[in-house]
Amino acid sequence: AAPVSFILGPCQMESRGHALMMAGQIKEIADRVGVQAVFKASYDKANRTSLSGKRGIGMDAALEVFAEIKSTFGMAVLTDVHEPHHCATVAEVVDILQIPAFLSRQTDLLVAAAHTGRVVNIKKGQFLAPWDMANAVSKVVNSGARDVMLTERGASFGYNTLVTDFRGLPEMARTGAPVIFDATHSVQQPGGQGGSSGGQREYVPVLARAAVAVGVAGVFIETHENPDAAPSDGPNMVPLDQLETLLSQLKALDAVAKPMIAGA
Amino acid sequence: AAPVSFILGPCQMESRGHALMMAGQIKEIADRVGVQAVFKASYDKANRTSLSGKRGIGMDAALEVFAEIKSTFGMAVLTDVHEPHHCATVAEVVDILQIPAFLSRQTDLLVAAAHTGRVVNIKKGQFLAPWDMANAVSKVVNSGARDVMLTERGASFGYNTLVTDFRGLPEMARTGAPVIFDATHSVQQPGGQGGSSGGQREYVPVLARAAVAVGVAGVFIETHENPDAAPSDGPNMVPLDQLETLLSQLKALDAVAKPMIAGA
Amino acid sequence: AAPVSFILGPCQMESRGHALMMAGQIKEIADRVGVQAVFKASYDKANRTSLSGKRGIGMDAALEVFAEIKSTFGMAVLTDVHEPHHCATVAEVVDILQIPAFLSRQTDLLVAAAHTGRVVNIKKGQFLAPWDMANAVSKVVNSGARDVMLTERGASFGYNTLVTDFRGLPEMARTGAPVIFDATHSVQQPGGQGGSSGGQREYVPVLARAAVAVGVAGVFIETHENPDAAPSDGPNMVPLDQLETLLSQLKALDAVAKPMIAGA
Amino acid sequence: AAPVSFILGPCQMESRGHALMMAGQIKEIADRVGVQAVFKASYDKANRTSLSGKRGIGMDAALEVFAEIKSTFGMAVLTDVHEPHHCATVAEVVDILQIPAFLSRQTDLLVAAAHTGRVVNIKKGQFLAPWDMANAVSKVVNSGARDVMLTERGASFGYNTLVTDFRGLPEMARTGAPVIFDATHSVQQPGGQGGSSGGQREYVPVLARAAVAVGVAGVFIETHENPDAAPSDGPNMVPLDQLETLLSQLKALDAVAKPMIAGA
Repeated sequence: AAPVSFILGPCQMESRGHALMMAGQIKEIADRVGVQAVFKASYDKANRTSLSGKRGIGMDAALEVFAEIKSTFGMAVLTDVHEPHHCATVAEVVDILQIPAFLSRQTDLLVAAAHTGRVVNIKKGQFLAPWDMANAVSKVVNSGARDVMLTERGASFGYNTLVTDFRGLPEMARTGAPVIFDATHSVQQPGGQGGSSGGQREYVPVLARAAVAVGVAGVFIETHENPDAAPSDGPNMVPLDQLETLLSQLKALDAVAKPMIAGA
Repeated sequence: AAPVSFILGPCQMESRGHALMMAGQIKEIADRVGVQAVFKASYDKANRTSLSGKRGIGMDAALEVFAEIKSTFGMAVLTDVHEPHHCATVAEVVDILQIPAFLSRQTDLLVAAAHTGRVVNIKKGQFLAPWDMANAVSKVVNSGARDVMLTERGASFGYNTLVTDFRGLPEMARTGAPVIFDATHSVQQPGGQGGSSGGQREYVPVLARAAVAVGVAGVFIETHENPDAAPSDGPNMVPLDQLETLLSQLKALDAVAKPMIAGA
Repeated sequence: AAPVSFILGPCQMESRGHALMMAGQIKEIADRVGVQAVFKASYDKANRTSLSGKRGIGMDAALEVFAEIKSTFGMAVLTDVHEPHHCATVAEVVDILQIPAFLSRQTDLLVAAAHTGRVVNIKKGQFLAPWDMANAVSKVVNSGARDVMLTERGASFGYNTLVTDFRGLPEMARTGAPVIFDATHSVQQPGGQGGSSGGQREYVPVLARAAVAVGVAGVFIETHENPDAAPSDGPNMVPLDQLETLLSQLKALDAVAKPMIAGA
Repeated sequence: AAPVSFILGPCQMESRGHALMMAGQIKEIADRVGVQAVFKASYDKANRTSLSGKRGIGMDAALEVFAEIKSTFGMAVLTDVHEPHHCATVAEVVDILQIPAFLSRQTDLLVAAAHTGRVVNIKKGQFLAPWDMANAVSKVVNSGARDVMLTERGASFGYNTLVTDFRGLPEMARTGAPVIFDATHSVQQPGGQGGSSGGQREYVPVLARAAVAVGVAGVFIETHENPDAAPSDGPNMVPLDQLETLLSQLKALDAVAKPMIAGA
């Protein structure tokens, strides 16, 4: 199996300048560490806890920035889609279309993403079992998708809390899809601050190490130069100046763990 | 507080003939029992477990049938919406626009439903706490909705299982919205049959009695003349020939319970 | 099926005077309402959150008081046992030996309680499924118990929270044992106050109504003349001066609900 | 922090011969791999699902065997205690007294174990939060225990299923106690086979790797030369002939992971 790779970026695309700065920094860090990195940002946060939460710069503006990041830094880019009719347009630029966890059972969205011919990354719903994802993979593969990835981001555990069941990673790998661990949203506390979601940033490296030791194709980590000032997911983003150490550690663990994985 | 009312109908609108037959039967039963009934059917099941699951007759055909049901039987009608751009069209006919539980945090859908001026019924996500629904109500009310209702349909409890926390009913009532108990989907076993969802029809009356004793504005029950042959949710629909007894029992319980409810 | 009966009393036996006062008041209230009541108190709280939590007056002193309550008020009495070697002594006086939920899988304790010939009331562990209780019933019945009762008191739901799955009541009734709903501990928030457990007293009547509507043989309610000053379980005990209204409501609901119960 | 060590042995002490064979084999394997190993066996399985489940050879016989294992192989030994009055006797021979998870809130048992002066290993109840264990540690430390260890073995997650929350390991480490990960019982499916518990042996190495990557003082693994014929916990014991590979892998991972742990 290939070495662990990474999906990295801020929660939302805040501005062209911010996205380019982040992409450039992430590219440099990944190169120094010697790992592959895909740039991630959301053009629209469609499920904020509150109506007044910032949602991003919108699809059209974001696609121009994604194109610029691809040509400037030579990075693949990933973003999430929320409406079936957005998929074709987004796919003109973006390499990996991500299906949000809440929408992981919405057939039309899965099919529209599959029809683009781009890679589709389906996040496992907080309300789904790992084995349920075989149905989501089927919907996408039977709609002509070239490649599908599955991402773990925690399961509902009582109220305002998620838990990661690490047995779910090898279980989802049985579908044949590469499995990604989203270390950022797995430590989210949904709705945990009343009008917004909380998070436990200190557990991102902890759970990311666990996932790499279990064996994953990739790790998804949101990062920001100043998380506490970020418009969304601040409580669970990793400060950019801690990213290099974290990637180095995960790379070192992966080098030891991957040969241990059954069937690897 | 008003006597308990009901939202009744088959899971999906299978055909004009079937919907008219069901609406007529339901209307007769409700009249005999002496309770208010809204007719419910889905024109599109957008989140079936499998790609090959039947999805209903589609929006345009369904809206004609809903109009016919309204004029023929004098019943209000309810259906669920999945895309923001469907809301305005659906609202030309349908009295209550229902937001599916998986989509209960999708801001655009909530706002589009609110803009129609119709009543919006938000089902609580299986991944949300009862108090989280205050945020959903805010999104809708601040977008101009006249009336909003909240529906309980179970919370994630381990894998492939839901549990109803009956403390959630008075908790959600604090928002001021009428609270509905969905006795059909609360006994669903999501993904519990591999390629489709299972259910425990025998617990529909059990949980419906509990909800009425706790105190609810309404009960949502899917029904079918032959549930085992229904294209979706068969395992948790109540056979039509058992509906009259169930409604009578719930009406009798409500008459005793409602005066006991704090603040009623 | 018989009308709903009640198990009532303070969490712990604080003193002879307090227990006699409580038993007398409870007996009067039950007689006025016209329901059967068993007196409940614990002589030793063996699993307090903290070492410094008060544990009760001890077995020997308590047994004398239980005997006095039986002869003075003609009430049956119930207490919980924690060690196998206590069972025989406790059974000399106490009518119903209760197995605490945490200990519901401790074979020696179940067998020792069964050997006394007294009624054994097994509380369902917070970590058990309703159908798991068939194994506990077997252990007791196969050890010669005359009568066994099962009590629901909530299931673990994330951290520091319990949820009641009301489908569990008819499920446990399939064993043939009378099913009791413990409305006091079902609203407990275990460890929810750091050094002690919290609770949501306001939901006791809510969940008790639900249980009676579902159909139970009895309801277990802890009560105290001044819960906020009680040495344990204060946050979830019902004030004594609210007990009569609550019992009356539950009796009225039961009269309507019990004939509705399948197989009743 | 010290390298990861291990607690190894069969679920129950089946006979003198079997225990000596297992201890000898385990000692050889641990020496070859170069890790510390404590021998574990239960003299009494006090909470079997069914009355007819085998419970072990009893305390007195077992203590002689433990003494023989200590002198023959120079290994420390661990066993679990279920009754306060057993602690002193067990402590004459056994180095580490283990408190079963179901009994982790039983004050008398914790205190009696603490009074022996031996190390006390408290397994976290399936119904407790990681932070709740600070109360258990307090009970033991304030009763004079020299050393206390905490063991994670999964939390209740719906019915008949456990989940391991790996955030709980660093959370419990805040108490100052060494944290052990029980890879055997974390993959148990309690009551999952009706009259006995099921398990998922294939996930023992998966979760053990995760725990070591997160950072633990030790890993607890039950092993048997023929798990499918073992009298208890067969479905989740690791075959003895796979133990050496597993220990080697965990040692290698630990060497890379431990320096990454915050505060290590």
